[in-house]
Amino acid sequence: MTDRIEELRERLAELVDLRNAAQVLSWDQQTMMPPRGAPARAEALATLERISHEMFVSADTGRMLDAAAAELNGASEESDDASLVRVARRHWDKARRVPSDLAADLARAGSLGQEVWVEARKRSDFSMFVPYLTRNLELARRYADCFDEFDCPYDVLLDDYEPGMKSTEVARLFDELKSELVPLIATASERPIDDSILHGNFPIERQRRLARSVVELMGFDPQSWRIDDAVHPFATSFGSSDVRITTRWDETYFGSSLYGAMHECGHGLYEAGIADSLQRTPLGHAESLGLHESQSRLWENMVGRGRPFSGVLAPMVSAAFDVSVDPESLYRAVNKIRSSFIRVEADEATYGLHIVLRFELEQALIDQRLSVSDLPEAWNARFYEAFGLEVPDDRRGVLQDVHWSAGLIGYFPTYAMGNLIAGQLWERAHLDVPDLDERIAAGELPPLREWLRENVHKHGAKFPASELLPRVVGSPIAVGPFVNYLKGKLSAVYDVEL
Amino acid sequence: MTDRIEELRERLAELVDLRNAAQVLSWDQQTMMPPRGAPARAEALATLERISHEMFVSADTGRMLDAAAAELNGASEESDDASLVRVARRHWDKARRVPSDLAADLARAGSLGQEVWVEARKRSDFSMFVPYLTRNLELARRYADCFDEFDCPYDVLLDDYEPGMKSTEVARLFDELKSELVPLIATASERPIDDSILHGNFPIERQRRLARSVVELMGFDPQSWRIDDAVHPFATSFGSSDVRITTRWDETYFGSSLYGAMHECGHGLYEAGIADSLQRTPLGHAESLGLHESQSRLWENMVGRGRPFSGVLAPMVSAAFDVSVDPESLYRAVNKIRSSFIRVEADEATYGLHIVLRFELEQALIDQRLSVSDLPEAWNARFYEAFGLEVPDDRRGVLQDVHWSAGLIGYFPTYAMGNLIAGQLWERAHLDVPDLDERIAAGELPPLREWLRENVHKHGAKFPASELLPRVVGSPIAVGPFVNYLKGKLSAVYDVEL
Repeated sequence: MTDRIEELRERLAELVDLRNAAQVLSWDQQTMMPPRGAPARAEALATLERISHEMFVSADTGRMLDAAAAELNGASEESDDASLVRVARRHWDKARRVPSDLAADLARAGSLGQEVWVEARKRSDFSMFVPYLTRNLELARRYADCFDEFDCPYDVLLDDYEPGMKSTEVARLFDELKSELVPLIATASERPIDDSILHGNFPIERQRRLARSVVELMGFDPQSWRIDDAVHPFATSFGSSDVRITTRWDETYFGSSLYGAMHECGHGLYEAGIADSLQRTPLGHAESLGLHESQSRLWENMVGRGRPFSGVLAPMVSAAFDVSVDPESLYRAVNKIRSSFIRVEADEATYGLHIVLRFELEQALIDQRLSVSDLPEAWNARFYEAFGLEVPDDRRGVLQDVHWSAGLIGYFPTYAMGNLIAGQLWERAHLDVPDLDERIAAGELPPLREWLRENVHKHGAKFPASELLPRVVGSPIAVGPFVNYLKGKLSAVYDVEL
Repeated sequence: MTDRIEELRERLAELVDLRNAAQVLSWDQQTMMPPRGAPARAEALATLERISHEMFVSADTGRMLDAAAAELNGASEESDDASLVRVARRHWDKARRVPSDLAADLARAGSLGQEVWVEARKRSDFSMFVPYLTRNLELARRYADCFDEFDCPYDVLLDDYEPGMKSTEVARLFDELKSELVPLIATASERPIDDSILHGNFPIERQRRLARSVVELMGFDPQSWRIDDAVHPFATSFGSSDVRITTRWDETYFGSSLYGAMHECGHGLYEAGIADSLQRTPLGHAESLGLHESQSRLWENMVGRGRPFSGVLAPMVSAAFDVSVDPESLYRAVNKIRSSFIRVEADEATYGLHIVLRFELEQALIDQRLSVSDLPEAWNARFYEAFGLEVPDDRRGVLQDVHWSAGLIGYFPTYAMGNLIAGQLWERAHLDVPDLDERIAAGELPPLREWLRENVHKHGAKFPASELLPRVVGSPIAVGPFVNYLKGKLSAVYDVEL
C-alpha cells in the first residue's frame, strides 16, 4: 500500500469511527434511552453529522482521493484499494453537494421525529406527528434540491438506499410483481388454513429463549452480538464484531418475535460477514439496502417459513411452550395468506402490496401532490383498495412504521426489492449447494451462511446490487425467481396449481 | 447575550455534544457491549477525543474566548456568562498543552484497558493486565510532562479530577483523617455486631425491585433515568435529562446493591440538578469529583446507613425478601466496622484507609518508585499493614477497581475527600433544615435533595470545591465534621464513648 492510499485510509477510518459513534447513539435511542433524553440526543447526533460531513466534503479529502486514485497503478477494479477509492469518490461527489448545516438538520430532525413517533404511535395520534413529518419532508426536498442530474427528487433519495436505482425501474418491477401477486393472493385467501397453533398465551421469557436458540443456530455469537427489545425492530452494527439486533414481543402470538428475530439476524449476518480487510473503511458496511433486505427476508421466509426448517423449528416451539406442534402444521400455519394491517407481520404474498402502497404515497408526499394532513385518509383509502380492509386506527395504519419519522424517505422500495433478490439468491444457492434443503432440514445452517458470506457478505460495499447480482446469479434484479419460489410454496401449502 | 458570547456558546455546545457522544459510547461499553466490540469501540473513542480536542484547542476557540471575555462588561463573576468564559478558558489553557494525538491515545488505551481488566479481574490474573496498566501509566506520565508549572507529575493528574488540589494538601488531610480513624476502628472492631440479617439468599429480581423503590424515593425519574448492571458500578449522564446509574448484585448480600444504588443515585441527582441554563455548556457537568463523591457518600451513608432512614428501609427490606427486619437491627448491622477486602463495600471508617493505600501506591507508580510487576506484592504488603488481612487473590486485591485500567490515575483521593465534604454539607444541612432527621425518618427526601440542589447541584462546574465550600459551609475542606459525625454514629451503634 502506498503512502497516499494509506493517508486516505486513515481519513476514511476516522469517518467510519464517527459513523459508528452515531450508530451507537441511535441504537441507544431506540433501545435504552429514557424519553426525556431525546433533545440532547438529537443535538449530539446533529453535531456528529455536521462534523463528519465537514471532514468528509473538505477539499482536503478531495485531494486525498485524487492522490490515491493516481497511485492505484492499474490495480484490479475489484481490489480493496480500487474499490475503496471508487466508492469513497462516489460518496464524496454526492456529499459535497449537501451543505453541512443541512446534513446536521437532517440528523437532528430524524432523531427528534423518532421520539415523537413512539408516543404518537402509542396514542394512535397522527396530529402530534404532523409537524415532525412535515419537517422531515421539507428537509428531504431541500436535500433532493442539492442535485440536478436526477430525473426527479424521489430518485435522489432512493439512490442513497439503493445506489443507481430509479423510481421508473422500481415502478416497472412493482407492476410486474403486483400482477403476479394479486391472483396468487386471491386464490390463496379463499382457502382455509388453520393457524391456531400460533395464537395463544406464550410467556415472553420463553419466547426470548426460543428466539435466542434459533438465532444461535444461524450464527448469533454472544461474544460479538446482542439482542434487545425495540418498538420497531431493527439491526445495526458498529463493525463486524459488534452486531446488535432487536425484536419485539407479543404474548399472544410467538410468530412476531421468532420470525422477526430470524429476520434481524439475517441482517446481522451480513454485517458480521464482511471481510476483515474492509473493516474501518467505507466498504465495511453493506450499502445496497435491497441486498441487505434480501438477507433478512431469505432467512426469515425462505429458511424460517420453509418446509425443511419447519422440521427443526416445530420441536423447538413444542419444547419452548410445552405444546405439541408438528412440522407440517407449523409450515402451513406460518404460510397463511391473508390481508392484514401490519407490514412487518404480513405474509410473503401480501407483503409486496404493503410496499407498493408506501412507495406510491411517499412519491406523492415528496412531489407535494399529497399533503401531510391528507396522508391518513389517503393511506386508509388506498389500503382498502389494495387489501379490502378498513384501517381501524392510525396505529395500525399510517403510524405503524418508524421510517418517515426518522427521515428515511425513499427507503421502503428496498424491502420489496429485497424479496426479489432473495428469490434470485435462493435459486442460485440451491444450484451451488445441491443438498441445501437436506442440510437445513438437519438444522445445519452453516452451508447456507457460508455460501451467502462468500457470494454476498464478504464484499461489503464493493459492488452495488446492479453489479453484484450479475456476478452471483447471472442477471440483474428480476421478479421471476421470487414468484416461482412463492408459487411453488403456496401450491404445496394450499394443494392447488398456481 | 452578545454575538461574541453566543458564538463561543455555540462552539462549546458542540464540544459538549461530542463529550456526551463519548460518554454514551463509554456507558455502552461498560453495560451493554459484547466483548469483541472492544477494538472498534476504542478506535471510535480515540477519534472522538482527537477531533474534539483539536476543535477545542484551536486558535479559533482561543480567539472566541478572548472576544467573549472582552464583552462581559463587568458581569458578575457568578453570572453564567462570566463563569462560562472563566471555566472554558481554564480548560483551554490546560488542554492546549496536550497534543491531540496524545489525547486520542489516552482515550484509546483507557477503553482497551477496561475491557482487559474485566477479564483479568474475572480470572484474577494480574499478568494479563500488566501491559495495559504499563501503557496507561506511561501515557499518564507523558500527559503530566506536558505541564511544568505543577509541583510534581501526580499533581497534574489530580488537578483534572479536583481542580486546584495538591498532593501535599491531600497527604495532610489524609494524615489527619488516618490518625482519627485508626483508634476508632480499633475500638469498634473489637466489639461484636450481629449483621446476620444482611446475609442469606436474596433473589436478584427482588433486590432489583427494592433498589428501584429506594432510588425512586430519592428522585430517580424513569422519564429521564435508567438503572443497569455493571461490573464496576458507576453513574454518568448525557445532560440533566438522561442520567444513567448502574449497580451490581450479590445474591448472598443485599447491602451491595441497595447501598450501591443509593450511592450512584446520589451522583445522578447531582447531574440531574444542574441548572437548565447551564445545559450544553462546559458548566453543565459537575467538575470537582470530591464534590461529586460527597453527594454519593452522603446519600449512601449519612442517609442510607443513618438511623432515621433505617426506619424507612427496614419495612421495605422486610417486604422485599419476606423477612422481618427491625430498624435498629438494620441500623446496627449496616454500621459494622470491620476490615474487609473490597473498597466499595467497606464500612465508613475503614473506607478511608482503602483510599490512602491507593493514593500512596499510585504516586509511587507515577514517580516510578514502584514498578507495575511489583504492584501486587506492594498492594498485599501494605494491605496487611493497614488492615491486618492477607489478600487471598488479586481479584480481591489490586484488580478490584476499574480506575487504573481506564487510565483514571489521580482519581482515588477524591473519594476520601468526598467523605470529608459530605461531613461538612451534612452538618450544614442540619443547621439550615432543623427538622431534617424527622423528614428523613418520615421517608421525605425532597427537603434534603432540594437543599443540595440549591447549594451544590445547580451550580454545575461554576465553582471549584475550594470556592463552593466556603460559600456553603463557611470553610475549606476539613476533617473535623466527618470525624464528629462518625464518632457520633459509632458511639450510638457500639454504645461506647468515642
